[in-house]
Amino acid sequence: MIENGWHTTQTRVRYKDTDRMGVVYYGNYLTFFEIGRAEYMRSLGYPYTELEGKGSSLAVIEASARYHANVGYDELITVRTSVTDLRRVRLRFDYEIFSEDNTLLVTGFTVHACVNNDRKPSRIPEELVNAVKIQQTPND
Amino acid sequence: MIENGWHTTQTRVRYKDTDRMGVVYYGNYLTFFEIGRAEYMRSLGYPYTELEGKGSSLAVIEASARYHANVGYDELITVRTSVTDLRRVRLRFDYEIFSEDNTLLVTGFTVHACVNNDRKPSRIPEELVNAVKIQQTPND
Amino acid sequence: MIENGWHTTQTRVRYKDTDRMGVVYYGNYLTFFEIGRAEYMRSLGYPYTELEGKGSSLAVIEASARYHANVGYDELITVRTSVTDLRRVRLRFDYEIFSEDNTLLVTGFTVHACVNNDRKPSRIPEELVNAVKIQQTPND
Amino acid sequence: MIENGWHTTQTRVRYKDTDRMGVVYYGNYLTFFEIGRAEYMRSLGYPYTELEGKGSSLAVIEASARYHANVGYDELITVRTSVTDLRRVRLRFDYEIFSEDNTLLVTGFTVHACVNNDRKPSRIPEELVNAVKIQQTPND
Repeated sequence: MIENGWHTTQTRVRYKDTDRMGVVYYGNYLTFFEIGRAEYMRSLGYPYTELEGKGSSLAVIEASARYHANVGYDELITVRTSVTDLRRVRLRFDYEIFSEDNTLLVTGFTVHACVNNDRKPSRIPEELVNAVKIQQTPND
Repeated sequence: MIENGWHTTQTRVRYKDTDRMGVVYYGNYLTFFEIGRAEYMRSLGYPYTELEGKGSSLAVIEASARYHANVGYDELITVRTSVTDLRRVRLRFDYEIFSEDNTLLVTGFTVHACVNNDRKPSRIPEELVNAVKIQQTPND
Repeated sequence: MIENGWHTTQTRVRYKDTDRMGVVYYGNYLTFFEIGRAEYMRSLGYPYTELEGKGSSLAVIEASARYHANVGYDELITVRTSVTDLRRVRLRFDYEIFSEDNTLLVTGFTVHACVNNDRKPSRIPEELVNAVKIQQTPND
Repeated sequence: MIENGWHTTQTRVRYKDTDRMGVVYYGNYLTFFEIGRAEYMRSLGYPYTELEGKGSSLAVIEASARYHANVGYDELITVRTSVTDLRRVRLRFDYEIFSEDNTLLVTGFTVHACVNNDRKPSRIPEELVNAVKIQQTPND
């Protein structure tokens, strides 16, 4: 579901995700970001596999996370995802991750370049651009 | 170094490898097994990348581990690896993992089928077979 | 949902789960096993966190997997889980993992010992034993 | 070894670290950052376990990575680490990761707050501060 440009999905913290501090290992939030953007794209009707099927992929060129609070095993966390910048070749996803009691855990973003099968920059497919833009239009 | 058929290498337990029990997550020992067999093959003079360069790979068809004792963060563990069965298409690696104070942590094995680029079974390259056999011959 | 002793849950293969062969890395199936047994226990009405809340945990003493077929990115896999052996201190879970088109991917099992906070063997709590036994009774 | 404030260590890319694009999964560079700062601290003579032994830990509050080039399986990468900001409670590590042929792969940083066993901010131990400062002094 995408509302006002933000998609919401949930995933559960597994033993595998935690570290000896009893909380999610900091690097694993980048996997939760991946889940967020994959489900955002599926929700657009343009799943990432379709992009790849057309010979493109979204190479990560930057990733950033701020850690506000920790969360432990078995928590059902919410990942909110939005495309906050959309250019010809690049796009940026922003993420907000919340615990079950709605505590903000982590915020972050990733910047991607659309590349073709030779890893050369290529335009983001028009259909994907349009699908994103529709979501960003305030629905009133 | 391979001695009497057993190769020895070391790797350090990272935060990433631990879980909320403060010890290595059980599934991560399969990564330590991977390290063991990769270093075994490098030590043979036949690194895994060379096998792949010749169009073959070793698909895992079985993996098994027994957990004897736990180990935590920053431990420098020792992975011992040996080829314990070697057929035309299949081979088996056995592993023993020890802590710094020489406590046996985990034993296990993996069974692999040599496959070509089409994922069809193919003979293990002669050079690899010979390199393994030399190591298994007792050097006296 | 548990039917005839087998619980069924689904999880999606992420980029993070795959390796350079384009398929799920062999060790990551042990995380899928973890998901299977956690959801089995939740479905029993006795989530793993409750066991831990009572001062017990299920230490893994053995894990085994057989790899029948591979699966790649974005596949929605099905994990079937059952308790196939239940003793005073030990229990065994069996797992079957299927692709979307119902291909059997991996079978395996894990054996666990119930331990207390001092990591000493302790009896599996009666309530958990009873909850498992009810599921194993054929419902006719 | 720390030279002009920068520590250098090496680690090898494993199958486990790669994803279906054949290169290191973007989130796994945060594990390489962890290796970098752990080995930096060990090299200072103040390993992270010692900090923890004194009741402190370094909670991550921010992490950032820029991806310049990709690297694949079996590459022996070099992780360079430096403390680039050092306050009473916070410190920042910067990282540079290079391939075997000295291509810059990833740059990034992490910001940490020193916290006590109750997860409350606490001063970074004097010995650690001093050990870092000595490394930052140009040795001429």
